[in-house]
Amino acid sequence: MKAAIVLLSGGLDSATVLALALEQGYVCHCLSVDYGQRHRAELDAAQRVAKSLGAQSHRVVKIDLNGFGGSALTDSRIEVPIGGIEPGIPMTYVPARNTIMLSLALANAEVQKARTIFFGANAVDYSGYPDCRPEYVQAFEAMANLATRATDEGHRLSVISPIMHLSKAEIIQQGVRLGIDYSMTVSCYKASEDGLACGQCDSCRLRLAGFEGARVSDPTRYQ
Amino acid sequence: MKAAIVLLSGGLDSATVLALALEQGYVCHCLSVDYGQRHRAELDAAQRVAKSLGAQSHRVVKIDLNGFGGSALTDSRIEVPIGGIEPGIPMTYVPARNTIMLSLALANAEVQKARTIFFGANAVDYSGYPDCRPEYVQAFEAMANLATRATDEGHRLSVISPIMHLSKAEIIQQGVRLGIDYSMTVSCYKASEDGLACGQCDSCRLRLAGFEGARVSDPTRYQ
Repeated sequence: MKAAIVLLSGGLDSATVLALALEQGYVCHCLSVDYGQRHRAELDAAQRVAKSLGAQSHRVVKIDLNGFGGSALTDSRIEVPIGGIEPGIPMTYVPARNTIMLSLALANAEVQKARTIFFGANAVDYSGYPDCRPEYVQAFEAMANLATRATDEGHRLSVISPIMHLSKAEIIQQGVRLGIDYSMTVSCYKASEDGLACGQCDSCRLRLAGFEGARVSDPTRYQ
Repeated sequence: MKAAIVLLSGGLDSATVLALALEQGYVCHCLSVDYGQRHRAELDAAQRVAKSLGAQSHRVVKIDLNGFGGSALTDSRIEVPIGGIEPGIPMTYVPARNTIMLSLALANAEVQKARTIFFGANAVDYSGYPDCRPEYVQAFEAMANLATRATDEGHRLSVISPIMHLSKAEIIQQGVRLGIDYSMTVSCYKASEDGLACGQCDSCRLRLAGFEGARVSDPTRYQ
């Protein structure tokens, strides 16, 4: 049985990544990171998704990034933009977040003797985040192989981003094909405690446009 | 004023790195990571070192790696070896620890607008840890520049390991030249709560041999 670590945020993208990893026959250990994000409902969503899709295990690692600030997602003094998507790196970018989460996945992979990390980065719909670029993921994988016992033990670690080049509509089509109930997932940056979406933040806008593009009715629970 | 993030463990090596960074004129923001290590006295030591040497700030980020296990430093069921240094990767290796700590330093650097991270990796005395190799540090730096806004903003992030190629004796000689009181530092993997060293673990053996090699009397406080 081949084991994999799947980074699971509770959103639509990583739920689809988990379903794709399971379809490929991986035994999936899911990892979510509680980094003090304001949309904490996504952590409950991650738990629902892991259980519902059939992950082997689900672990939440807590780390305090609030002290660092610098992002609308971790600093309550910075507002989440709701006026529509603008060019450039958005205020919701959390400094080095994906690097921290992939590093934790790497630690987990080494302990679980998993040689594969699944990561839901996407370069199509949202190119504003530097740590979602394909060349970033490749550089992380190269570093990971030098960081760990992997090379010494004669094998390689892989970081797989199966939705990197899919549009949001194509991601949703994959998920629908695999039977995901997307009402379980929470994408909204301003989600209420019980996971209801605002419909106005960038993440809500991209998600809604994705369902429209996929010609799938939007199951999102709005406020 | 050029700002730097300095990873500070509380041990001898990173204290010397901080002194070298300060000598080079950097305004130093120190970062320590409370990852549930059994030798928690090193975090108190880090605080003493940061204050004594004149760091601008010192932050401790808490993260729970105990749940991952897999190392004598984070899993209380695995004993710290005290029989002498053996070939290969030791049981005190913490999976992906340096990658996690450098990732946190990267986040901190981005928020503080620091373009330099100082990191006390050393390849000479202790080559058993994969994440202390020069090629690992280079790979992390390459990844870091793709992970962040750095490239988009037209500058580069550097990860500097000033003691990478120094022997423990040479590190101590540098520190003595810069006036470090090494009795403040704690290197022991089995240190008592008040920072007294065991004298038997690999870290204690390397440290003692370093003072002997440097012909400096050992200021370590033993149990």
